[in-house]
Amino acid sequence: MKPEKILYGGDYNPEQWLDEPDILEQDIQMMKEAHINTVTLGVFSWAVLEPEEGKYDFEWLDGIVDRLIKEGFSIILATPSGARPKWMADKYPEVLRVDANRQRALYGYRHNHCYTSPVYRQKVREINMRLAERYGSREGVILWHISNEYGGECHCPLCQEAFRTWLKEKYQDIHTLNKAWSTTFWSHTYQSFDQIESPSPRGETFLHALNLDWKRFVTDQTADFIREEIQAVRDGGSTLPTTINMMYDYEGLDYHKLADLVDVISWDTYPAWHKEPETETAMDNGMQHDFMRSLKHQPYLMMESCPSATNWQSVSKLKKPGLLSAQSMQAIAHGSDSVLYFQIRQSRGASEKFHGAVIDHYGGTDTRVFREVSHIGVDLEKICELKGAVTNAEVAVIYDIENRWAIEDAQGPRNKGMYYKQAVEKSYYAFRKLGLNVDVISMDQEFGSYKILAAPMAYMFRAGFAERVRDFVAKGGIFITTYWSGVVDENDRCYLGATPAGLTDVLGLRATEIDGLYDHETNQLVPEDRSIFATKISYECRHLCQLIDVSTARILMTYGTDFYQSQPAVTFQPYGMGYGYYIGADVEQSCYDDLYRRIVELSRVHVPVEQVPEGVEVTTREKDGDVYIIAQNFTPNDLFIDLGEGELLLGNSSGKISTYETIIMRRRKQ
Amino acid sequence: MKPEKILYGGDYNPEQWLDEPDILEQDIQMMKEAHINTVTLGVFSWAVLEPEEGKYDFEWLDGIVDRLIKEGFSIILATPSGARPKWMADKYPEVLRVDANRQRALYGYRHNHCYTSPVYRQKVREINMRLAERYGSREGVILWHISNEYGGECHCPLCQEAFRTWLKEKYQDIHTLNKAWSTTFWSHTYQSFDQIESPSPRGETFLHALNLDWKRFVTDQTADFIREEIQAVRDGGSTLPTTINMMYDYEGLDYHKLADLVDVISWDTYPAWHKEPETETAMDNGMQHDFMRSLKHQPYLMMESCPSATNWQSVSKLKKPGLLSAQSMQAIAHGSDSVLYFQIRQSRGASEKFHGAVIDHYGGTDTRVFREVSHIGVDLEKICELKGAVTNAEVAVIYDIENRWAIEDAQGPRNKGMYYKQAVEKSYYAFRKLGLNVDVISMDQEFGSYKILAAPMAYMFRAGFAERVRDFVAKGGIFITTYWSGVVDENDRCYLGATPAGLTDVLGLRATEIDGLYDHETNQLVPEDRSIFATKISYECRHLCQLIDVSTARILMTYGTDFYQSQPAVTFQPYGMGYGYYIGADVEQSCYDDLYRRIVELSRVHVPVEQVPEGVEVTTREKDGDVYIIAQNFTPNDLFIDLGEGELLLGNSSGKISTYETIIMRRRKQ
Amino acid sequence: MKPEKILYGGDYNPEQWLDEPDILEQDIQMMKEAHINTVTLGVFSWAVLEPEEGKYDFEWLDGIVDRLIKEGFSIILATPSGARPKWMADKYPEVLRVDANRQRALYGYRHNHCYTSPVYRQKVREINMRLAERYGSREGVILWHISNEYGGECHCPLCQEAFRTWLKEKYQDIHTLNKAWSTTFWSHTYQSFDQIESPSPRGETFLHALNLDWKRFVTDQTADFIREEIQAVRDGGSTLPTTINMMYDYEGLDYHKLADLVDVISWDTYPAWHKEPETETAMDNGMQHDFMRSLKHQPYLMMESCPSATNWQSVSKLKKPGLLSAQSMQAIAHGSDSVLYFQIRQSRGASEKFHGAVIDHYGGTDTRVFREVSHIGVDLEKICELKGAVTNAEVAVIYDIENRWAIEDAQGPRNKGMYYKQAVEKSYYAFRKLGLNVDVISMDQEFGSYKILAAPMAYMFRAGFAERVRDFVAKGGIFITTYWSGVVDENDRCYLGATPAGLTDVLGLRATEIDGLYDHETNQLVPEDRSIFATKISYECRHLCQLIDVSTARILMTYGTDFYQSQPAVTFQPYGMGYGYYIGADVEQSCYDDLYRRIVELSRVHVPVEQVPEGVEVTTREKDGDVYIIAQNFTPNDLFIDLGEGELLLGNSSGKISTYETIIMRRRKQ
Repeated sequence: MKPEKILYGGDYNPEQWLDEPDILEQDIQMMKEAHINTVTLGVFSWAVLEPEEGKYDFEWLDGIVDRLIKEGFSIILATPSGARPKWMADKYPEVLRVDANRQRALYGYRHNHCYTSPVYRQKVREINMRLAERYGSREGVILWHISNEYGGECHCPLCQEAFRTWLKEKYQDIHTLNKAWSTTFWSHTYQSFDQIESPSPRGETFLHALNLDWKRFVTDQTADFIREEIQAVRDGGSTLPTTINMMYDYEGLDYHKLADLVDVISWDTYPAWHKEPETETAMDNGMQHDFMRSLKHQPYLMMESCPSATNWQSVSKLKKPGLLSAQSMQAIAHGSDSVLYFQIRQSRGASEKFHGAVIDHYGGTDTRVFREVSHIGVDLEKICELKGAVTNAEVAVIYDIENRWAIEDAQGPRNKGMYYKQAVEKSYYAFRKLGLNVDVISMDQEFGSYKILAAPMAYMFRAGFAERVRDFVAKGGIFITTYWSGVVDENDRCYLGATPAGLTDVLGLRATEIDGLYDHETNQLVPEDRSIFATKISYECRHLCQLIDVSTARILMTYGTDFYQSQPAVTFQPYGMGYGYYIGADVEQSCYDDLYRRIVELSRVHVPVEQVPEGVEVTTREKDGDVYIIAQNFTPNDLFIDLGEGELLLGNSSGKISTYETIIMRRRKQ
Repeated sequence: MKPEKILYGGDYNPEQWLDEPDILEQDIQMMKEAHINTVTLGVFSWAVLEPEEGKYDFEWLDGIVDRLIKEGFSIILATPSGARPKWMADKYPEVLRVDANRQRALYGYRHNHCYTSPVYRQKVREINMRLAERYGSREGVILWHISNEYGGECHCPLCQEAFRTWLKEKYQDIHTLNKAWSTTFWSHTYQSFDQIESPSPRGETFLHALNLDWKRFVTDQTADFIREEIQAVRDGGSTLPTTINMMYDYEGLDYHKLADLVDVISWDTYPAWHKEPETETAMDNGMQHDFMRSLKHQPYLMMESCPSATNWQSVSKLKKPGLLSAQSMQAIAHGSDSVLYFQIRQSRGASEKFHGAVIDHYGGTDTRVFREVSHIGVDLEKICELKGAVTNAEVAVIYDIENRWAIEDAQGPRNKGMYYKQAVEKSYYAFRKLGLNVDVISMDQEFGSYKILAAPMAYMFRAGFAERVRDFVAKGGIFITTYWSGVVDENDRCYLGATPAGLTDVLGLRATEIDGLYDHETNQLVPEDRSIFATKISYECRHLCQLIDVSTARILMTYGTDFYQSQPAVTFQPYGMGYGYYIGADVEQSCYDDLYRRIVELSRVHVPVEQVPEGVEVTTREKDGDVYIIAQNFTPNDLFIDLGEGELLLGNSSGKISTYETIIMRRRKQ
Repeated sequence: MKPEKILYGGDYNPEQWLDEPDILEQDIQMMKEAHINTVTLGVFSWAVLEPEEGKYDFEWLDGIVDRLIKEGFSIILATPSGARPKWMADKYPEVLRVDANRQRALYGYRHNHCYTSPVYRQKVREINMRLAERYGSREGVILWHISNEYGGECHCPLCQEAFRTWLKEKYQDIHTLNKAWSTTFWSHTYQSFDQIESPSPRGETFLHALNLDWKRFVTDQTADFIREEIQAVRDGGSTLPTTINMMYDYEGLDYHKLADLVDVISWDTYPAWHKEPETETAMDNGMQHDFMRSLKHQPYLMMESCPSATNWQSVSKLKKPGLLSAQSMQAIAHGSDSVLYFQIRQSRGASEKFHGAVIDHYGGTDTRVFREVSHIGVDLEKICELKGAVTNAEVAVIYDIENRWAIEDAQGPRNKGMYYKQAVEKSYYAFRKLGLNVDVISMDQEFGSYKILAAPMAYMFRAGFAERVRDFVAKGGIFITTYWSGVVDENDRCYLGATPAGLTDVLGLRATEIDGLYDHETNQLVPEDRSIFATKISYECRHLCQLIDVSTARILMTYGTDFYQSQPAVTFQPYGMGYGYYIGADVEQSCYDDLYRRIVELSRVHVPVEQVPEGVEVTTREKDGDVYIIAQNFTPNDLFIDLGEGELLLGNSSGKISTYETIIMRRRKQ
């Protein structure tokens, strides 16, 4: 993207204020006062742009675009497919979704179109082309915001038919599908592709391979819709970059399959600050930033965030003073080139009227939020050179959506909580506490160049994965995996023989039984005598305990109680030039911290800061031979950190870092 | 109503016992033994009155009515529309309701007719007219009980059409509606009234102004149905008064709009005694009594109450000895002219067979319940002069149903509990603990003549309200309001500018941000030094903390913790001849108690009893220049209370009031 | 059944492995190694047996049957109606169920056919006949396993019509039905049978007599379906015995009405071991064993059990070493002639792939589970003479399904938990702790020959029950009943007059009010001075407290608190040659234990072992003049027990019985 500035601003909906022309002028003045430089227009504007079928009204938008560009603002322009006009639903009911119970929605809400409907695709194409023709080459318009927060699924007859076609292309003949899906179980054998229906609580939900393929189809069909949206923009003559705004930990789509469709990754983040300790919320939010950044391994945009309290969380807590700055700078720290808010001005009515905004109903600049927003605007101008700086990581954690789908869908050792995400977080946090940049990747992404790769609860080994891991370790990589790994193939079909399938020699063991623990139950991992991997006498574990038969691995920890007391639980062994580590139980964070600290020490991984105080986040970005070291304090206390030599861009150089403070230092890369 | 007696008796269903003629005679003897003087007949009798379409059978009812009148009982006669015969649902499915998911009910239950259906209205009209012709001028028949516990809503095509007509009449043109409803948000603009559908989880639930108008329509359509029911009775030649039996804290209807349709207010009360401390249950039940009384500001009827345990609460607790008397006398204390039970005789089968009754399946008079009922019958005869006595109140609390709808529907500072009712209760309780009669009124009712008006969480300021309050205070009234007040107009559309809208000068402040607290979180309100308004060092507050910018108000309390520590939380200031008080947070009851006690002391409000012990309820009724002072002890302990001079009608004059005891004293008004 | 061995083995699904022929051979070798002698084939094989309508494929099954028989295995052959092929649902949608909301299921899951559908019955008949013709006379095939775990209900038009016919046959005219169902309540009178619809949340659920008759119809219609299935097998020429596999505490069917249809009772047991203390789980599981045994008062089969962890419970806990043996031997102890598992080999895919099996995905014999299974196989051969031994009981507990339906459906003293099953368990456990065999019977089964009969919470007294009890006691029987007994007739219609209806003279009291207690509330039962029935000063009671008027009974305990403090709670009196005991409240187990121990001591009941340590189960079986005394230790500790003289078949004779150990001793009956 063009402008050499960190994008600062957010969603703006002037169409809600067309009958109050003064508002636009007030807003422009206030935006300038807040150092805002970018606005997103047109999300949900369809009913105003096309008030009747085929009758378009762009005049109001022309005026706003002209005015904003004249004032120097950059514009991100949305296609309006996130919500459709009422007339369209009335005339073409097929644009409305059908749910898994086969009931078609009535008109309402948003983000609920049928993505297969030819009519809807055609209507979207028409409006997108017109928008592209009119605004797609304007100086000042910098990016296409394609639709809004894609998600959900449709089970209408059109989608059923598309699903069958998709399956036919994938499996070619029905016998292959029957085998892959294990349909002989409960006599569910299909005789032809025409018989297949999407999963439904009224029909079938226990055929896990069907569920998996349905989810894959939903992603592919959504991708196809996005592709058509973008094509319309191109056909309208615009060559501007495109993005879709993704969501926090959204499990309905495989974002990896959408990443290639767009030029820039962007996402919307709404952490529930002050619910858990801020250090935990920051860690959690940071992992999502890193997941988004790792999608393309390049700078991305924080497309939405809330300058105050949201209105849709269970409790709408105010952000404490300084927290908004910390949240905004965290995005920059992890690789974002923007700080964008939803929203610049609060709407007066309907469901989001109490969602925080830069300008609230009161409408003055004498508010706490407006002052903080303005302050951040100034800071972002100070650090604008970070724009475009990249993030390099030597360690990675696998967080794989298909694996997640499969783990959560299977009926297995615990049907009340497998805690896959938490298992991934424990590895991620353990790395991050050392100040390491961490890539968060899928099983299919390239991992050959990392020094350490953690693959917690890698239940599903898709074809080729075990071979790639073997190669990685043989060449010197350090591979860490855990309980409930290597159990099934991509169709949730169990591997026969020893598991983790294909890696038992790399790890020197095979997994045998797995014990589910009730929520109130615990066991312990007890380190072997004089272990260099532990600082505690024992670590508490919960939920799942994998029993293992060790062949050649060295035992690091054993179980503390139950009938498998003293049996091995944590192991490692050298393999080729590298090492294979195995963690058998859902053990507490401190065990991960101790293990990973030692593993990193024993590796060739470079640590940017020697001593990272608990609760301080350290990240680096690099550009033109410079390294930017960024430290943020998410604890309620003043702390001390030595960032070494360098030029201070933000914060202070006393060594002290106070609550919610961000320090940014630049030094030449060595 | 005619008879100069407190009505004592209740619902009676002899149609369930037509094949056992002895039962009626037994019942009459037992009723007389219990000093019962009134029975309600005909609720749910339709299938017996019209066993086939157009074939009526009144003979059985003739006999019962004759017999009861001969024995001196008064009769309240119900129209039977609360449940319809099976043949009607089979022949005219349109009489059955359609739910919000657009699914029509099958036949069953009760209270579930479509109130728009022309067929149903016609059938109701026909049976009502016949009942009126036959019984509507009988000596002994004293009141029409129109249908039963109206409630619920219907989304059938007929109702959709009626809703559209209702909207068209209200808004005239669709642009006015679009603006009022803020439909530009999410592109929901309507092009015509024909496009509008009622709220539905399958369609739209987030357009809050639609939700509000739908609820208003439901009330208006129900009112229209009631009007037709009553017209049929009039057309049948009966001039008897009418009532509808309302329900405890029912939020489905705006009872204020129904109050004018009938001659007498009545309601059904089923407190869950012995779940919370009896003092709390009594306070809660008392507020409902006062709400019902305030609907018309005249004596009303307690139409249903349970002489023993109900069968539909989660746990059916027995009433402890004496509690039934206390419950019955509480109705009299708050202004009821009746003590009526559901039911006189328990049914043998179906869902309510275990609902408490005066006569149970055992059928004898040697039961605890029968003895207590008989005792109350004697007491009511002793105090019969209270019939018709009125209640005068100098203070009022606003408890507004539209405000409640809006607060609970909006997505705002807390989506897991705003506690509007509890906020109203705190003000009500604080007044009641001083022995004051309290009116519980809507925002639209007249409040000019009160000395103190409390308006807690008055989120919605409907047009004119702020002006009326300003005038009230200017002329000497004391106005108390709280956090989350004056935020939106009647369409849940936010006021622009400072809030509470239109009252910032009366209060000397404006509300800024509001902080939602998690359930486990607390803050404190800390009184200013040497405050005369407080007895504690600090008061705990929860759920919501409003931050305020004070201009001219005097600060009474500030916040104890969080980033807004020491910022103002409770204020007051003189305005005109009166005062404006503001309470910024959801603070504990004792804070309300301390504040309100002092506010009352500083006012010209008259207190009937100097020292009201905690847990004793004091009320007064007035008639012909006499004041009746009523004291009730809802605590488990004997207490002492000085009611002053007067003639004792009930209880003892020792000064001691024992558990569940009621003392009634009469003296001349001064 | 023929073979003189305890059946050992379980469900086997080779149709899932037809493309891997080596698997069958491996399985056979492993089964033999595990001393397995029986396999169940064909459950859910329909799609493989009839891949297209009318095209049958038995070849694969021929091969497997031949091979298994050649290797000496016995075969239990299933009819495949538990799950139907996809083509059938596509062509004949009527085979799919309609739920209570009147929505027809889509294809999926299992156990969800319409049991009325003529097409489905015809299709089942055709496949059953063919199976019978082909395999029904094969040496080695020993039993028909009719369908699988019958359950559920269908509300389709065909079933509605069948229900109406059923009702017409039962009641003959609609007036009789109206009276029995108390339809006058809420005006629900029916004019004809054609108007009746099954219960539905969209229609009616509060007409309890309708609900009861619907449940009776569901059982009768299921029975009719079973009868047709069996007839098809007979028409196919097979005379082999039949069974249906029943489920743990299944409340959807009245198993007593199905018991006569089959030759052998069998059931599937999946206790959640290690959730509660094992002693409690064993007691609970033991009661189900005894319920199943009492259905026909003859040896039965444990048709399914899990050799490891299931996959469908909330948490899949591993069985601790030795527990599998204890579970298996418990079946033998209570009268089973089999130990059968679901399943011999784990499936690779679909929903049950992680359900425990003898052979897991790893596929080796070097697993803990395989070793334990093999060990049990050896033990069962040691004790094979127990096959066919019967169980004699002198005491019985009534656990009546219609009573349960009625208690749980009625809206009464507690709508959040009546705890009927727990009340029955307390009586059962009290007997079992004395080492007594206990029959668990319905109200309709013969009870004249028992010495003690406990009928806890016998809410529904069906016609004749009171008379049979009176006769039982008059002739010397000891009858124990409790609160909430004798309240309604078979249509949930209350008895008028004193209750327990018809037994007030036998008990010497009448029940008056019943108090529901909240979950957090308790009361106490206080024994009279110097009572021989108690060992504690007081016993805690919860949930329900029945107040009683005592006429002639002797009071054993009174209430400890509340307004009914000191009122009678537990009584007894002699009546004729016997005694009537009454327990008024839901009191803790230890009170039952103390009471029942003393009642047994005072009776002529024979106790097999003098001192049974807490947590040890003692049972006896008898055959050919021998008594087999079986003791099992379900505690975590070694205990001592003196079983007297005899020949040791299993376990040790040291007097010590260790955790999960089973000791079996044979001696001549005296």
